[in-house]
Amino acid sequence: MVHSTPRAATGDPAHADPAAHEFDRDTALVPRGDATFDAVISGGWSVLGAVNGGYLKALLGRALSRTLPHPHPCTATAHYLSAPTPGPAVLRATVLRTGRTLSTGTVSLHQTGSDGAEVERVRMTATHGDLAALTDHVGTSATPPAVAPYDRCLALDAAGAPGALTDTPIVERLASRLDPDSVGWALGNPSGRGRMAGWFAFADGREPDPLSLLLVGDAMPPAAFDLGVVGWTPTVELTTHVRALPQPGPLCVVTATRNPAGGFLEEDAEIWDSAGRLVAQSRQLARMPRTAAG
Amino acid sequence: MVHSTPRAATGDPAHADPAAHEFDRDTALVPRGDATFDAVISGGWSVLGAVNGGYLKALLGRALSRTLPHPHPCTATAHYLSAPTPGPAVLRATVLRTGRTLSTGTVSLHQTGSDGAEVERVRMTATHGDLAALTDHVGTSATPPAVAPYDRCLALDAAGAPGALTDTPIVERLASRLDPDSVGWALGNPSGRGRMAGWFAFADGREPDPLSLLLVGDAMPPAAFDLGVVGWTPTVELTTHVRALPQPGPLCVVTATRNPAGGFLEEDAEIWDSAGRLVAQSRQLARMPRTAAG
Repeated sequence: MVHSTPRAATGDPAHADPAAHEFDRDTALVPRGDATFDAVISGGWSVLGAVNGGYLKALLGRALSRTLPHPHPCTATAHYLSAPTPGPAVLRATVLRTGRTLSTGTVSLHQTGSDGAEVERVRMTATHGDLAALTDHVGTSATPPAVAPYDRCLALDAAGAPGALTDTPIVERLASRLDPDSVGWALGNPSGRGRMAGWFAFADGREPDPLSLLLVGDAMPPAAFDLGVVGWTPTVELTTHVRALPQPGPLCVVTATRNPAGGFLEEDAEIWDSAGRLVAQSRQLARMPRTAAG
Repeated sequence: MVHSTPRAATGDPAHADPAAHEFDRDTALVPRGDATFDAVISGGWSVLGAVNGGYLKALLGRALSRTLPHPHPCTATAHYLSAPTPGPAVLRATVLRTGRTLSTGTVSLHQTGSDGAEVERVRMTATHGDLAALTDHVGTSATPPAVAPYDRCLALDAAGAPGALTDTPIVERLASRLDPDSVGWALGNPSGRGRMAGWFAFADGREPDPLSLLLVGDAMPPAAFDLGVVGWTPTVELTTHVRALPQPGPLCVVTATRNPAGGFLEEDAEIWDSAGRLVAQSRQLARMPRTAAG
């Protein structure tokens, strides 16, 4: 696995053709009309054998972008109902309300179960807007996190992750890096702070956009790993606020949990773009692995 | 307006009768069957003339509690589609998935508009569970916020709020208090930190439960007031994670915004119970008042 610094979008002729990038191919939709779409869930974005929730969210987000009059998810919440499998899926979107600057819709992803019956996998409701039309006002008081530069952070394979992360092909799709301070879990020495910091980038150089930010919030190793809880933390619900159009380049991502309790934990993610703008905030509720839930 | 210390539940005979408390009367539902309910939106929980989003969320939450096999909202997300008016409303709930420990449903609140057509006001999706059945594990690393004791905090009227808060009857339903450090906005001297700390309690002594926590996350003065932005900040979306059964007594609530930008802001709330447990975390996306959005 080769992790080079991701290519800049400028001058990348592939950038103009969505089908040239893995993320866009794997979230492609075939419209049936009536706000119904066919898709194929890729097996390439899985983590510990489970289809990544952020990837699924982007797939549902694309269906809403094609259905609502406003292009960008401003706030999107997905509830994960049953475990999807790679293969065919049907997405059905419904418009709930359209306004001048915002519109809201809901979308469900279904698959045919082993008994031939249709099963709902994910339900998402989102309010869309046009991030290019927002005011220039930036009153952000949050400060960008202290993370080592991309070139001094560690690729997941270099961090020794493969030993812990079997059946996790998503790492091959990403050129993500972890801060040296966040890799202790992979060496059996987690910091105990419940914090994961690093950089997100697509391995094939695709640049970030609002749709891909729905993936980014769920694409770092779980913050629970830094608590010594290395196992699958299935997402119950994931909400993403996309607050600005991201600039090209790797995204700085910090995830943290402050309330692992009762068998569940929240995980917050902050996503900063190359211009130092806080472009997205996400929070999920996840289950702790059973062995760690006490 | 008299703000006494709220009565303790123990020995309060009214506690056994839901209809004895304003919150329960104003979220009462009349089932039609088929997971459809009639309700009457009260005008008593309004803020600056608008029906409070947390109150509406509790109303929808009650409909899901009656429809799903699990009693408590673990994570609930409401999208606010159009402005409700006090008066009759219809709620329609749908079960999306039932499992052993969690179940998920969606519910919509409709009213009849001035033209006689039905209009959807709020859409909520929630995953329910049984908070009494969670494990005893508490690994919370967040620390309770530094807030002055209830008796040394200020009632909203004592803080001079009525001058800024016209048409805000919710303050009469609550015995909430603000930390002396959080009342500068009411005196024309906001701290600029975007933080609001204090205590939440019902004026009639009703004790907290999971349903009422859906209100609490949206019932403090907006954190934007502490930035000098005193005006209506309409909620676009509000997500609440309820993480434990709250103990009786006033709840310590801290709200904060770190990313007011582009005409929107997020507001995070942490809710701590009298036993020092972080019982709920909420986040909303809201619009900045137009004058402040640059």
